[in-house]
Amino acid sequence: MRHFSTSIRVYYEDTDVGGIVYHANYLKFMERARTEWLRSIGCEQPQLLAQNIAFAVVSADIQFKKPARFNDELIVSCQLMKIGHASLQFEQKITLKQNNNHLLSQASIKVACVNLDTMSPRTFPPNLLEDLTCDI
Amino acid sequence: MRHFSTSIRVYYEDTDVGGIVYHANYLKFMERARTEWLRSIGCEQPQLLAQNIAFAVVSADIQFKKPARFNDELIVSCQLMKIGHASLQFEQKITLKQNNNHLLSQASIKVACVNLDTMSPRTFPPNLLEDLTCDI
Amino acid sequence: MRHFSTSIRVYYEDTDVGGIVYHANYLKFMERARTEWLRSIGCEQPQLLAQNIAFAVVSADIQFKKPARFNDELIVSCQLMKIGHASLQFEQKITLKQNNNHLLSQASIKVACVNLDTMSPRTFPPNLLEDLTCDI
Amino acid sequence: MRHFSTSIRVYYEDTDVGGIVYHANYLKFMERARTEWLRSIGCEQPQLLAQNIAFAVVSADIQFKKPARFNDELIVSCQLMKIGHASLQFEQKITLKQNNNHLLSQASIKVACVNLDTMSPRTFPPNLLEDLTCDI
Repeated sequence: MRHFSTSIRVYYEDTDVGGIVYHANYLKFMERARTEWLRSIGCEQPQLLAQNIAFAVVSADIQFKKPARFNDELIVSCQLMKIGHASLQFEQKITLKQNNNHLLSQASIKVACVNLDTMSPRTFPPNLLEDLTCDI
Repeated sequence: MRHFSTSIRVYYEDTDVGGIVYHANYLKFMERARTEWLRSIGCEQPQLLAQNIAFAVVSADIQFKKPARFNDELIVSCQLMKIGHASLQFEQKITLKQNNNHLLSQASIKVACVNLDTMSPRTFPPNLLEDLTCDI
Repeated sequence: MRHFSTSIRVYYEDTDVGGIVYHANYLKFMERARTEWLRSIGCEQPQLLAQNIAFAVVSADIQFKKPARFNDELIVSCQLMKIGHASLQFEQKITLKQNNNHLLSQASIKVACVNLDTMSPRTFPPNLLEDLTCDI
Repeated sequence: MRHFSTSIRVYYEDTDVGGIVYHANYLKFMERARTEWLRSIGCEQPQLLAQNIAFAVVSADIQFKKPARFNDELIVSCQLMKIGHASLQFEQKITLKQNNNHLLSQASIKVACVNLDTMSPRTFPPNLLEDLTCDI
């Protein structure tokens, strides 16, 4: 199981009147990390979309432990834990770069491979499955 | 020229660390008002999308005069000023309901009718043009 | 335990290239419903913020069952399940108004009462606790 | 006048059902570029916020020429054109990296230096003014 992470800067747009990152935006950051992880194993999603294939989030179980703040540099990790018939299970963490990778948030996220037209689950394209299997 | 306006509540998601509504979100509010205005003249956009027709914003000239804040109730107006060959010109205002409609923001926004596939301009469907003409 | 729900329209801003509502935005919709529920029991959050008190989401366990689409009218419910020392536990559902309230998403969400300066948990203000207790 | 630009990747969160980047998000991208430009001249905004100073967008005149799409890598430029008493005038462009920097959007954006409490304009802190003057 390969460790993958990407760096994300917190901008004004990500914050709220409480002075911290708006909670729903952590899910955006985690999705950016999954996108970069897919790219790192050679999968560019527009090529999937052109074949009418997309990834859809099925469930997310997320804990918000400490707040991220404006201008923070975050490290967002992404680990593929399990490859199902038509789904992927990830563990993801968001840590604070400038503070010894202090844990801010963690989540278990399940993503399905779907037909874009119908949004119904479908098996992974063979090439993609091979790349995924190498990574777990 | 008919006056149209809709009411929008400011939620946590709309604010930023400065304690006010994040500036880009005013464009979202104005687009919600244009959507409701279209609905008010009988145009439901999913029916257009099914015909491969969409509206795309071409330009926006917006002034941010006073900040909106968390929990404010805003009145967002939408006036069709001009119908072009493949475009619509709007004047829009955002005012504060609880303070005598104090002006917060105003904008001139130009929207094009486009083919969704190519994003190139196209004439309005006849039915829509008729409804638009009745409204100006 | 009182049943509370509010109606939310899906706009362009809420959708993504997959043609459906972007998953993180369901958390925004659920937070709007909690805000309206708080208002319905007499609690306006700016008054809390002025006392340096805020609500912060601690955890969210959310299932995305069916996609919401552009222009859908959603019913977002909010039920207070448990009042903790410094936290509230909610069950929330998003259903599709135009289709017999077909279930799209459901979530268990835990929210903490915090000091805004320190983001550390604190007990509820007595007035608010009374209003909350009446509602469960 | 120094040329500054930063690279931004388009993620799912930035797109809409039309298959392109949602128009209001271009303003977010431009604000990210201004933040990175400020950082490049030695100004970290949290230090300003701690002194009760913030930047607020006063006006934006933006043209959307060509759509950005999911997964595009964008170059967002930021040029300081004029330093006013309490304001900065910028010209900003968004171009497509993979296509010879094809122009997608351009904007004139005016930003005011404000007291965060009152949102009223104020002069720049002397240190910041010096750094700004070096850059124009």
